[in-house]
Amino acid sequence: MRPQEIIERKRDGHALSDDEIASFIDGVTSGAWADYQTSALLMAIFLNGLTKRETHSITRAMLESGAVMDLSDIDAPKADKHSTGGVGDKTSLLIAPLAAACGIAVPMVSGRALGHTGGTLDKLESIPGFNVRLSSTEFKRVLKKCGLALAGQTSQIAPADRKIYALRDATATVPYIPLIVASIMSKKLAEGLDALVLDVKTGSGAFIADYNETLKLAKELTATGRSFKVKTRALITDMSQPLGKYVGNALEVYECIKIMRGEAEPAMQPTIDLSVELTAEMLVLTKIDKTIQAARSRCQRALASGETLERFRQNIELQGGDSAVCDKPESLLEKRLKKVPVNALKNGYVTAIDTHCVGQCIGNIGGGRMKAEDKVDHAVGYSSSVKLGDRVRQGDELGVILARTKTDADAINQLLQNAYTIGPKKPDTTSLIKTAV
Amino acid sequence: MRPQEIIERKRDGHALSDDEIASFIDGVTSGAWADYQTSALLMAIFLNGLTKRETHSITRAMLESGAVMDLSDIDAPKADKHSTGGVGDKTSLLIAPLAAACGIAVPMVSGRALGHTGGTLDKLESIPGFNVRLSSTEFKRVLKKCGLALAGQTSQIAPADRKIYALRDATATVPYIPLIVASIMSKKLAEGLDALVLDVKTGSGAFIADYNETLKLAKELTATGRSFKVKTRALITDMSQPLGKYVGNALEVYECIKIMRGEAEPAMQPTIDLSVELTAEMLVLTKIDKTIQAARSRCQRALASGETLERFRQNIELQGGDSAVCDKPESLLEKRLKKVPVNALKNGYVTAIDTHCVGQCIGNIGGGRMKAEDKVDHAVGYSSSVKLGDRVRQGDELGVILARTKTDADAINQLLQNAYTIGPKKPDTTSLIKTAV
Repeated sequence: MRPQEIIERKRDGHALSDDEIASFIDGVTSGAWADYQTSALLMAIFLNGLTKRETHSITRAMLESGAVMDLSDIDAPKADKHSTGGVGDKTSLLIAPLAAACGIAVPMVSGRALGHTGGTLDKLESIPGFNVRLSSTEFKRVLKKCGLALAGQTSQIAPADRKIYALRDATATVPYIPLIVASIMSKKLAEGLDALVLDVKTGSGAFIADYNETLKLAKELTATGRSFKVKTRALITDMSQPLGKYVGNALEVYECIKIMRGEAEPAMQPTIDLSVELTAEMLVLTKIDKTIQAARSRCQRALASGETLERFRQNIELQGGDSAVCDKPESLLEKRLKKVPVNALKNGYVTAIDTHCVGQCIGNIGGGRMKAEDKVDHAVGYSSSVKLGDRVRQGDELGVILARTKTDADAINQLLQNAYTIGPKKPDTTSLIKTAV
Repeated sequence: MRPQEIIERKRDGHALSDDEIASFIDGVTSGAWADYQTSALLMAIFLNGLTKRETHSITRAMLESGAVMDLSDIDAPKADKHSTGGVGDKTSLLIAPLAAACGIAVPMVSGRALGHTGGTLDKLESIPGFNVRLSSTEFKRVLKKCGLALAGQTSQIAPADRKIYALRDATATVPYIPLIVASIMSKKLAEGLDALVLDVKTGSGAFIADYNETLKLAKELTATGRSFKVKTRALITDMSQPLGKYVGNALEVYECIKIMRGEAEPAMQPTIDLSVELTAEMLVLTKIDKTIQAARSRCQRALASGETLERFRQNIELQGGDSAVCDKPESLLEKRLKKVPVNALKNGYVTAIDTHCVGQCIGNIGGGRMKAEDKVDHAVGYSSSVKLGDRVRQGDELGVILARTKTDADAINQLLQNAYTIGPKKPDTTSLIKTAV
């Protein structure tokens, strides 16, 4: 089939057959489709839509464009968690060792920071020596030994998705749910999982801010996961403020190790709550626990006993990192940063936080990347001092910028100030976990 | 402006501003826009449309992406004819010298065969030595000396259009009227014309077969021409059967020279009629003649006097060709071709001819090209023996294939046979010229 004919069919509003979709994805993988043909089809898909059958078919074709991990020789149930991305969302760092400590094998393939959101790989690389580039053999060896492996997508996993994702980013075809679903699920299904828990963010810092769209995404993700016989569950969770205390790569690792050490500050509690809830869902899906209550208790015990920290320590050592950070998490913090407070502009209650803006600001001073090829500064970041609903007085500290220079901090201070809406009335309480799908 | 933002606006159904369009076309010309971004925008344009203002703006931006000929030192009125492409449509070869003989300067920039349609440049190259690659200086020198110049688009003319056209061809975004209009008019307006006559084809061999769509195209073409202060007129003409007698490069040049020599066969009459009518429109638009009747008479005289042939001969010599073909047109015909008749399958009247199929068949045996980089065989082609409405008996000759080998001819014989619909009732007469816009 010529690419033109397939593009033409979608252009004219037809559903593509499984053969046409296979021909498209094969062509992307092999290079028989030129990038400009792929992007024309992506735009036609964006505007004319995909049916559920087509979404399933694209997901399958992208999955099959690469290797699927064979973890059949690992006895433990295999499960993973995937988040649609947020600001200060460091739960992966906690969930992987926590779930491992509870008896799950966690083959976690993660991404890097892009735009306003952070990325697990960048966070991990703030641990000296930590290697996120594992071959599939190394990945499996690490997973077998400590129950978790944390690495980047290899070129063997869903290569078609990688090309397509890069093109979508450059051609304004990212925010279309069936394409998002196919992209996420083709990668996650390649992990050879029994169960998958999805953390679908909603609110000002989420990739999709609108709640109804988020719900739609969550439903399509779980439906697709289940259509591939993987037990899938999605929680829609709040991203209308940064999660926990810190935003920034090393700072977020620090927060997680403090939690694993039983030294959590009160501001870190949401990080614990969300991580426990998502891990508990994994435990129920894999039938390690029968009820979510029992699963939550198991998680609390695995944190309190130090077993979670122990798994993380083993993992760091197996992936070449310096596990001394587990004993001295302060060593992750760069001493020479400028600490500049962001002050409240008036008296009142914090009624809204433009969380996208917070993520963007930290990205702007080096904490993230605007383009895939940018370098990340692991040290810089932000520390939240107040939460939604807190009462503040003019001049109170809303948060603290941790920047390389005063100039950097000044460049974003006003933006951050304005990211906080302060009103006269105490807002309704924001629940961290909205619903499960 | 980032390409993504402009793509996003059109994706979401907004009209693009003149600045956004200029940024797009500049980006295409400079390479700042990647091909995959251009093709994504083209698909969004195809599906979400362009307003008249946007079409004008894209035409202007594409025109201004390149050089515009300065023909102000030529006293004669400057006019050209452009056809949307057909099968056996060789009128350019006749109109250029005919209009020149009538006092018009004809700076004709033409294209090559693609798909099922022929191209003037390929036809001209069947004249030994004829050079269609002229610099703008050479082009102007030839035009001044003989009143016509026939060449391909240089890289200086509407470079953005060239890139965009190639992408549209590969991404199923060709058949959208505003893009067709912008593509045609940006090139024609670069010729520095006073007047332009458009031959918009309709019927089974036309680029757009549907009459109402053809009418829409004709109206948008003339409106755009006039919005640039060029006197523009379009004739909608019949392409429901091959025009004149021959299809094929050298064969069509032969037909034109026979006509210029006053040796036309009856089957060639439609070629004369259409060429005269289009040239007459040019004469009226440029005010050389007041009425279309007077203009037609002038054309008939310029043909009968031999002045048209004389202009063609001068042009061939100025462009490096062997003008002996004017005296011995038979020398254009390759003697060693296999001549294989296509026979009628039954008795009756020819009620329809799939002219697109005829063009495609001749392309398939080498007379055209499927891809821009294919080579063309100038000698091969087809000779029509019957016209729409003719009565035939089973086994009668419908036409003759002129191929390199019997195998080539056999490969298309059945397709050609089936391209002729033969029915029991004599069909209504097809008028060559449908309407003027």
